[in-house]
Amino acid sequence: MTAAEADRLARVALARITEPGHVRLLDLVSDSGAEVVHARLLDHPEIGRRLSAVEPERELAAAAKIGLRFVVPGDDEWPPVLDDLRTAEPVQERGGVPIGLWVRGPVRLDEVGGSLAVVGARTATTYGTDLAADLAATVGEAGRAIVSGAAFGIDFAAHRGAVAVEAPTVAVLACGADRVYPQAHHQMIDHIAAEGAVVSETVPGGAPMRIRFLSRNRIIAALSAGTVVIEAALRSGALNTANWAGRLNRTLMGVPGPVTSASSAGVHQLIRTGAATLVTSGEEALELLGASGEHVLDIPRGKDRPRDGLSHLQRQVLDAVPVARGAPSVSVARVAGLPAEEVHTTLLGLEVRGMVELDGDDGWRLAALAHD
Amino acid sequence: MTAAEADRLARVALARITEPGHVRLLDLVSDSGAEVVHARLLDHPEIGRRLSAVEPERELAAAAKIGLRFVVPGDDEWPPVLDDLRTAEPVQERGGVPIGLWVRGPVRLDEVGGSLAVVGARTATTYGTDLAADLAATVGEAGRAIVSGAAFGIDFAAHRGAVAVEAPTVAVLACGADRVYPQAHHQMIDHIAAEGAVVSETVPGGAPMRIRFLSRNRIIAALSAGTVVIEAALRSGALNTANWAGRLNRTLMGVPGPVTSASSAGVHQLIRTGAATLVTSGEEALELLGASGEHVLDIPRGKDRPRDGLSHLQRQVLDAVPVARGAPSVSVARVAGLPAEEVHTTLLGLEVRGMVELDGDDGWRLAALAHD
Repeated sequence: MTAAEADRLARVALARITEPGHVRLLDLVSDSGAEVVHARLLDHPEIGRRLSAVEPERELAAAAKIGLRFVVPGDDEWPPVLDDLRTAEPVQERGGVPIGLWVRGPVRLDEVGGSLAVVGARTATTYGTDLAADLAATVGEAGRAIVSGAAFGIDFAAHRGAVAVEAPTVAVLACGADRVYPQAHHQMIDHIAAEGAVVSETVPGGAPMRIRFLSRNRIIAALSAGTVVIEAALRSGALNTANWAGRLNRTLMGVPGPVTSASSAGVHQLIRTGAATLVTSGEEALELLGASGEHVLDIPRGKDRPRDGLSHLQRQVLDAVPVARGAPSVSVARVAGLPAEEVHTTLLGLEVRGMVELDGDDGWRLAALAHD
Repeated sequence: MTAAEADRLARVALARITEPGHVRLLDLVSDSGAEVVHARLLDHPEIGRRLSAVEPERELAAAAKIGLRFVVPGDDEWPPVLDDLRTAEPVQERGGVPIGLWVRGPVRLDEVGGSLAVVGARTATTYGTDLAADLAATVGEAGRAIVSGAAFGIDFAAHRGAVAVEAPTVAVLACGADRVYPQAHHQMIDHIAAEGAVVSETVPGGAPMRIRFLSRNRIIAALSAGTVVIEAALRSGALNTANWAGRLNRTLMGVPGPVTSASSAGVHQLIRTGAATLVTSGEEALELLGASGEHVLDIPRGKDRPRDGLSHLQRQVLDAVPVARGAPSVSVARVAGLPAEEVHTTLLGLEVRGMVELDGDDGWRLAALAHD
């Protein structure tokens, strides 16, 4: 058996007897290696008994039969971004580099670098789900994978947006990667397993539990170059993922909504406190994700206005024309600080363009076209 | 004649022959004093003729008759915050400390320190106008004046919100302070003149022109401790006021809206670029305006949840209970890393609270109540 094989087997066994995100254990494994920790725990009266009952070769073989692989540090497929979890502060007592990830699907974890996590409320509004699908599709079309948690609401919409443009998408589950949760997303999760990747730190067969959702969220944040939060109430679980993105120095973004919607209150708080940057579209998310020079957007300038086509002189004159009642060209000239004759000629040119109009005998005033 | 009187008359005359926000002239006046500039300009062939035709005493007397006063630097009523305009970079060739402000109404300009400017789209939606009125009322009730421009849309709603709670409100106009623009707001502007203050840098009788709107915006920003922008399209005039607030180191705030609404795009850009801080309510605006210790909000935590009342032990157990299919208490105990007997007792207590339930023969699962 190679050292790598021995390490993998030790990790399978340790994963079986502990919970995802068990900070102390994972730190020990990161520091001393899985085999050392495994050997040490065998001496423990109760844990040792459970540990020695695990048959890791058999687990791996059973997993392989149903298309599950166990990706561990040192594997070619291991994404180095996950190692950032080693130094990040725990959140709600969960943390650490996962002992390994169970993966089902053709997309390799080392190929989703630069991906975007899209998370948010399970009880999302159509405003939120439409935006999530749209944003995921835009980012997916630019060649980046979309990572989410396959939950109701925003998660589902994000996967759907990626699938719609045939972009790779990764679902990180709280239950085992061989299981489906929620059951209603059975078709979507199967599709992701066929075309993308279904990932879990929880052992095969494991049920979804709150402790595992909390652990799972750190994997979503760590796998991605950035996380965008769309609709999250003040205590939404999505804020836990956002928290992880911040601790991991990932780009954290939030899409605002009406301030009258409680579903956006958590996002607004992230933006308000400076934790997240406001984005309104996939293009803006790409700009923030992009390496320098990549995806840099022109600052949106709004529609062109009639004023845009004018010369400096024409603008100076226009700015001095009254909005309401008209004024004679000499008084426009005085306000503009320009010679009366030049102003008169310019006004005639502006009239042709429909920017000013004669107000009976009172003189020139702005035409509606030029009000902005 | 006292020096102060001579200075005031020189300012009245200079104001009559120049436009608001004329940077070069205003800088000269700030540097050398109004009388010196006045004397120098009398020598100019064309300007001198116009200047000597002004009758400042008569102008002041005529103004006084219609309730207008001319407030200049050195007056008790002159708000020192306006002097910040001396060093601020011009925007669109407008800038400088105003030569004086024409004021109509009982509220004194030196008493509106700490006020909030509320500006935004003229073509606002009801989302925007409702929020503007609400926010202005909240800030007004806390004893701060509301400054705006009496325009359609957000401006009007802001004044309306202040008036509703009988808070002082200040309308800074682009036309003369004796005039009304827009005409449709005639009643509101009269009300503000009776209870608050109508202010203009434009001479009495002056018409509203674009150049004067641009100059006016800097007065709105300078008079206030902070500016909040509610609904502004990408090239809205409200962004000009926001720009001034930034240059004057005032607190700049923006209220977000749906990203699908073009009316909020300018606000989102201000927040996204870090120029403005996101606020969702008058309380949050007050917090940002407040001196340290004043109006500091508790961070909103969302509604209390059933979990909040639990002990640490109860939460540990709850976090290990499956969401979907049930699990026996020994398996919950293993996941939680706690003794089986202690977990069993705790589960019974959680059942009484309605947090967990028995799933047939399979064991314990989370009750709907505990899902968040």
